[in-house]
Amino acid sequence: MCYNCSLFFNRLTFKQHRLNIEKVKRMRHFINLNDIKIKELHRILDLSASIKNELKSGVMPPYLAGKMLAMIFEKLSLRTRVSFETGMFQLGGSAMYLGSETGGIGKRESVKDFSEVLSSMVDVIMFRAMKHRSVTDFAKYSSCPVINGLTDLSHPCQALADVLTIREVFGEFKKLKLAWVGDANNVAVSLVQAVAKLGMKVSIAAPAGFQFRDKNLRGLGREIDPAFEIELTDSPAKAVRDAHVVVTDVWVSMGQEDETEHRKQVFAQYQVNEKLMKKAHKDAIFMHCLPARRGLEVTDEVMDSEQSKIVQEAENRLHVQKGLLVWLLNEANR
Amino acid sequence: MCYNCSLFFNRLTFKQHRLNIEKVKRMRHFINLNDIKIKELHRILDLSASIKNELKSGVMPPYLAGKMLAMIFEKLSLRTRVSFETGMFQLGGSAMYLGSETGGIGKRESVKDFSEVLSSMVDVIMFRAMKHRSVTDFAKYSSCPVINGLTDLSHPCQALADVLTIREVFGEFKKLKLAWVGDANNVAVSLVQAVAKLGMKVSIAAPAGFQFRDKNLRGLGREIDPAFEIELTDSPAKAVRDAHVVVTDVWVSMGQEDETEHRKQVFAQYQVNEKLMKKAHKDAIFMHCLPARRGLEVTDEVMDSEQSKIVQEAENRLHVQKGLLVWLLNEANR
Amino acid sequence: MCYNCSLFFNRLTFKQHRLNIEKVKRMRHFINLNDIKIKELHRILDLSASIKNELKSGVMPPYLAGKMLAMIFEKLSLRTRVSFETGMFQLGGSAMYLGSETGGIGKRESVKDFSEVLSSMVDVIMFRAMKHRSVTDFAKYSSCPVINGLTDLSHPCQALADVLTIREVFGEFKKLKLAWVGDANNVAVSLVQAVAKLGMKVSIAAPAGFQFRDKNLRGLGREIDPAFEIELTDSPAKAVRDAHVVVTDVWVSMGQEDETEHRKQVFAQYQVNEKLMKKAHKDAIFMHCLPARRGLEVTDEVMDSEQSKIVQEAENRLHVQKGLLVWLLNEANR
Repeated sequence: MCYNCSLFFNRLTFKQHRLNIEKVKRMRHFINLNDIKIKELHRILDLSASIKNELKSGVMPPYLAGKMLAMIFEKLSLRTRVSFETGMFQLGGSAMYLGSETGGIGKRESVKDFSEVLSSMVDVIMFRAMKHRSVTDFAKYSSCPVINGLTDLSHPCQALADVLTIREVFGEFKKLKLAWVGDANNVAVSLVQAVAKLGMKVSIAAPAGFQFRDKNLRGLGREIDPAFEIELTDSPAKAVRDAHVVVTDVWVSMGQEDETEHRKQVFAQYQVNEKLMKKAHKDAIFMHCLPARRGLEVTDEVMDSEQSKIVQEAENRLHVQKGLLVWLLNEANR
Repeated sequence: MCYNCSLFFNRLTFKQHRLNIEKVKRMRHFINLNDIKIKELHRILDLSASIKNELKSGVMPPYLAGKMLAMIFEKLSLRTRVSFETGMFQLGGSAMYLGSETGGIGKRESVKDFSEVLSSMVDVIMFRAMKHRSVTDFAKYSSCPVINGLTDLSHPCQALADVLTIREVFGEFKKLKLAWVGDANNVAVSLVQAVAKLGMKVSIAAPAGFQFRDKNLRGLGREIDPAFEIELTDSPAKAVRDAHVVVTDVWVSMGQEDETEHRKQVFAQYQVNEKLMKKAHKDAIFMHCLPARRGLEVTDEVMDSEQSKIVQEAENRLHVQKGLLVWLLNEANR
Repeated sequence: MCYNCSLFFNRLTFKQHRLNIEKVKRMRHFINLNDIKIKELHRILDLSASIKNELKSGVMPPYLAGKMLAMIFEKLSLRTRVSFETGMFQLGGSAMYLGSETGGIGKRESVKDFSEVLSSMVDVIMFRAMKHRSVTDFAKYSSCPVINGLTDLSHPCQALADVLTIREVFGEFKKLKLAWVGDANNVAVSLVQAVAKLGMKVSIAAPAGFQFRDKNLRGLGREIDPAFEIELTDSPAKAVRDAHVVVTDVWVSMGQEDETEHRKQVFAQYQVNEKLMKKAHKDAIFMHCLPARRGLEVTDEVMDSEQSKIVQEAENRLHVQKGLLVWLLNEANR
């Protein structure tokens, strides 16, 4: 057999990991960044950067040849769906979209039955859920790794894309300051969990009632870099002072449409605009997980400025999720 | 060319079977188990077991390299969709999901046009239909093989998974007794068609009005194993006596939601619970095609017992459908 | 490395074309046939015919190995979706269906953000839009090629399938006459744009108010074959006289359901039936892009006659789109 073919034959000789009870007990999922060690986070980022480089130089090794990802969506999605589906394909695998047409988890049948059956047929599952609890319940019964694709409490895949973007721009994390301006929501929680492990300073500017809660901070405790510092404030100006990275998100997340008018008033002073960006570090970049409501939480000027890294950040969803999938299937659960 | 690459090049040199009129006349579909010979049923099960073994030992030969399956769904689906999509991918092919967004069969255009066009572009079609007649009408005009993925009258793919599970557990069919408890529905009809060819004994316990009809029994006549026996009763206890396999299904199938309360009353005595299972053979297994309504047709105790083979049974959907697809495309229509 | 494997390794060494700003400026899309040169149209048809021949003789070279197509649908689809998805798979790539579950273009976020993000993750995008403007706006921001999969103004992929079918039947275009009978809609516009470049004669029979407008004719001006002639009439009999190709389409297109009754009256005299077909050239063929409303714009007799090429025409959607994709990705934007 010719040497160059060997990559391909990974597919034919690929070892399907059907897990016995003992293995299920130590199954590694990717539900919260707090469950990941510092070393593991760096490993995922290294894998992601390396896989991105390979793609850019025209190489697509089939690291996940023959593997199937099931994607369960209880909420709308563009980036998450496209990036996972493209990613699996580029890795030699495939992905299937399961929306409401599957009958709904826990409605048509028990979560246990749904999870045991689905995980018996695929190799990895991504779950975007209304309730965080749905993902943890599902993972409990799954015989294959489960990835959190956004819940009301966290969005760890987005946080991976954000920190890879920061690393690409600044080359490091230590000595950098990140400012989050606006609703301290699920995306903020995961981002802070990530930068806590990477040793950045963080300042979160949010109005009363929309600020980080104690439980969000307690969750950080397990393994954080000593250089990590966090400041909670209600002043956007204070938060962005000397910040290298300014991040915001929509004021009204999916499922909060009823609160639209109230939230518009509460967040009126938290818009990221040119004036605010001028108060940040001179090399500061702007990030937003998208979709953005231009003219509300951020202006067109900032979105379309040279400081804006929103497209690079979104594209990085593709690369970090490929790194994550390879780590989860080929290393963490090997 | 190196020898080991030859499997891959099946894909490049794959012969597309565009069928001429003459061939259409003898096109083999998979719509009812009654259309299949005993020998063919054993061949499908052998292929399925062999492909399952290959997968478990890490080998995925691309038996259907380059082939596309279209899946038409008029009803919700989890198992059918996931198992067919994963199966085609593992076989080197691909599958596409066609739900209501395609415009609906026979609504936007004639069944003839829909079938002729779709079958001109893909290699095999799976159809889950509200009405059995829709599948037979569609198949009449199709230039590629059509698989019944569940209709109001039958569910032959589920029956294949069930009998493979029985074979895995008991190693044979002869001398075994199967008890069906509850609604003698489409799933029951196909299961009986399968075990009739395999020589099992069957007892069906159903209340008046929900029992097998004469036409169901007449349909069995063509090719059955001489050891096959069938008993119709309204007593669950009588049906499960000495049974090796106890099977049930939901009392209210998709599309019967209006009858929910009535059916709950009618079937109240037909629950499969520990007490009933104790009346079966001491080695008896429990099966259910899922989704199950725990607490109605079956209790948690039975579902989660060691006798329960529901996850193995569901996973076998994947393996038998791969066997079926390989048989249909590479043998029956070669 | 063995020579025969080289095709496969296109995938592994495939060069991902992430486009820099300069390249974006000269990005070639496929939005209207008027943007295509005569030579390019012939090249696409040659590629399509060659790829079709390869498939029919059992060869599927992975010309687009590793490439991902995103398909955005604002309208229902059968042919377009199935043909693009099967086509990408047969070319070694993959396709993903994006329907309303992605949140809608320009609703959840700006077209600019949507286009920049989506095009950063895939290699080519097909867009079926309610408004033609949506496609041109989207293409403006896309960093990968965009294909028009039907708008209110044009349907260039259908026109490619139609002219390939004509070429297959008659072997040439010059000296042939094409008659369009009925609503001079988006499909008619694209078909005339195609045959204008190929030197056919065209006659369009449509009632007042549903005939070609000046702007449709002006658009043809850029590069047309000198043999091209166009006649506008309200007489079906005049249009089909000596015509080699008779084409019609539904009287009520998607989105015009309100006008159903009015349109039925207006078009009553424009039915393509046996009597009308007898007035055409003795070797005339009948085409229809489907779905057809049998009994309205065309009779069963014509649809099911030997003159009818509707299935060949529909199947050719698959082949011409494969040719188009290969041309767009491997030649026009190389």
